[in-house]
Amino acid sequence: MGGTTSYLKNLLSQDNNAFLPSISVDCVIFGFYDGTLKILLNKFKFFDQWMLPGGFVLKDQDIDNAASEILLERTGLNNIYLKQFHLFGDASRTNRQVNKEILKQNDIDYDESHWLLQRFISLGYFAFINYSNAKIRAKQDEEIRWFDIDKIPLLYSDHNLIISKAISTIRQQINNIPIGKELLPEKFTVTELRTIYETILNRKLDRRNFQKKMLTNGIINKLDEVSRKNGIKPTFLYSFNEEKYNQAQNEDAILFEF
Amino acid sequence: MGGTTSYLKNLLSQDNNAFLPSISVDCVIFGFYDGTLKILLNKFKFFDQWMLPGGFVLKDQDIDNAASEILLERTGLNNIYLKQFHLFGDASRTNRQVNKEILKQNDIDYDESHWLLQRFISLGYFAFINYSNAKIRAKQDEEIRWFDIDKIPLLYSDHNLIISKAISTIRQQINNIPIGKELLPEKFTVTELRTIYETILNRKLDRRNFQKKMLTNGIINKLDEVSRKNGIKPTFLYSFNEEKYNQAQNEDAILFEF
Repeated sequence: MGGTTSYLKNLLSQDNNAFLPSISVDCVIFGFYDGTLKILLNKFKFFDQWMLPGGFVLKDQDIDNAASEILLERTGLNNIYLKQFHLFGDASRTNRQVNKEILKQNDIDYDESHWLLQRFISLGYFAFINYSNAKIRAKQDEEIRWFDIDKIPLLYSDHNLIISKAISTIRQQINNIPIGKELLPEKFTVTELRTIYETILNRKLDRRNFQKKMLTNGIINKLDEVSRKNGIKPTFLYSFNEEKYNQAQNEDAILFEF
Repeated sequence: MGGTTSYLKNLLSQDNNAFLPSISVDCVIFGFYDGTLKILLNKFKFFDQWMLPGGFVLKDQDIDNAASEILLERTGLNNIYLKQFHLFGDASRTNRQVNKEILKQNDIDYDESHWLLQRFISLGYFAFINYSNAKIRAKQDEEIRWFDIDKIPLLYSDHNLIISKAISTIRQQINNIPIGKELLPEKFTVTELRTIYETILNRKLDRRNFQKKMLTNGIINKLDEVSRKNGIKPTFLYSFNEEKYNQAQNEDAILFEF
């Protein structure tokens, strides 16, 4: 670790009244790049397990704001599609031994009453962000990077479960809530959009049907431009119809039926 | 209040280590009777606002179990459809003045560090129960009763908001998750089932279309029996196809499209 007091050491030295006790926030941050859906993970340099970007809630802070700040700190992005999806509240989920190890590694003078050694419940949020706009920032004693969604390692605590639950929640809502706009660049191919849906649904979708549905409900528009980046065959580009997309976010109606 | 130590006084006398700090659970319990969707509310006898049945989480208790116990205590029912839907986490939601008043009214000797005077976040659950099977039980210093969903009074804290959010969550999922089985008796009329959907969606549904959809997806079966209770015209009774209903609960597929 560096010579100055690290971010983490500073955090762990907070007294027991700094944060709302026993509650943490964990964020499943999705990005899309190079044809693959990815999740952002970070890791303390001294510690061998990756984890979801997360944090604690200040005594006077709205929980949703705590989540927004975590996202801003790690990605530089504000005003992001960020949604709480589940409170993980099992009594057995906190591993006090691991948390003790984290305190020790950071030379924290602690006793059993230290706030990090209490039982924690954690509120899960998911976020969709634009991969290219994000400025991924590690804290000074951390690493942070994107992992392909099918290559997530064994994570700290119940964070693998938190990811599964995020995906199953999005899957349940996929007929009602449009996704993709936050993840894709302004101009994209239908294949890119379909890949996102296929990844969340965990199955192949019919290419023609998918395109037809998306065009029929007016959520995407075909542009007069083609993409040539994927080699041989030029492919038409599309963009989202902002108005229809936002409208669809606020309606109960069915958008698609996969 | 009675001569013995009341349930509430006993609860409020718990020391600061009895419960997981700063977290409560509130349950929106739906029942259906006499053609109307209802919500169960309770009230302390000394206090003039009704509230959602709720409670706190023991230090070693899973949060979902805390919610189940609240339901069991108030309704006598076990193994109920009970689902967390939102964590209410705004810093401003706790009204310490009102909570002080509750302590005073119960002759509790307290100071500012009393656990009830801390900031609380609350996890909202909704439950569907069978009105006739429920044995509604008040604690000794409480009243408890059903309120028609369109006649909910101004409630304690943000409990009106919790109800609105429960209904909007169910509405969002109404195309994917079958409802009604937990609320209705074994044999029911299609009008009763449609009324539940209309109440949640807050709009009228076409009578014939509704019936056709429900029969087409096989979730209900027409019986060889009629109901005569609603006066003039005998109406056919229906029952749920348990297997199809349970299967539908576990699928991503669209059941209905209203």
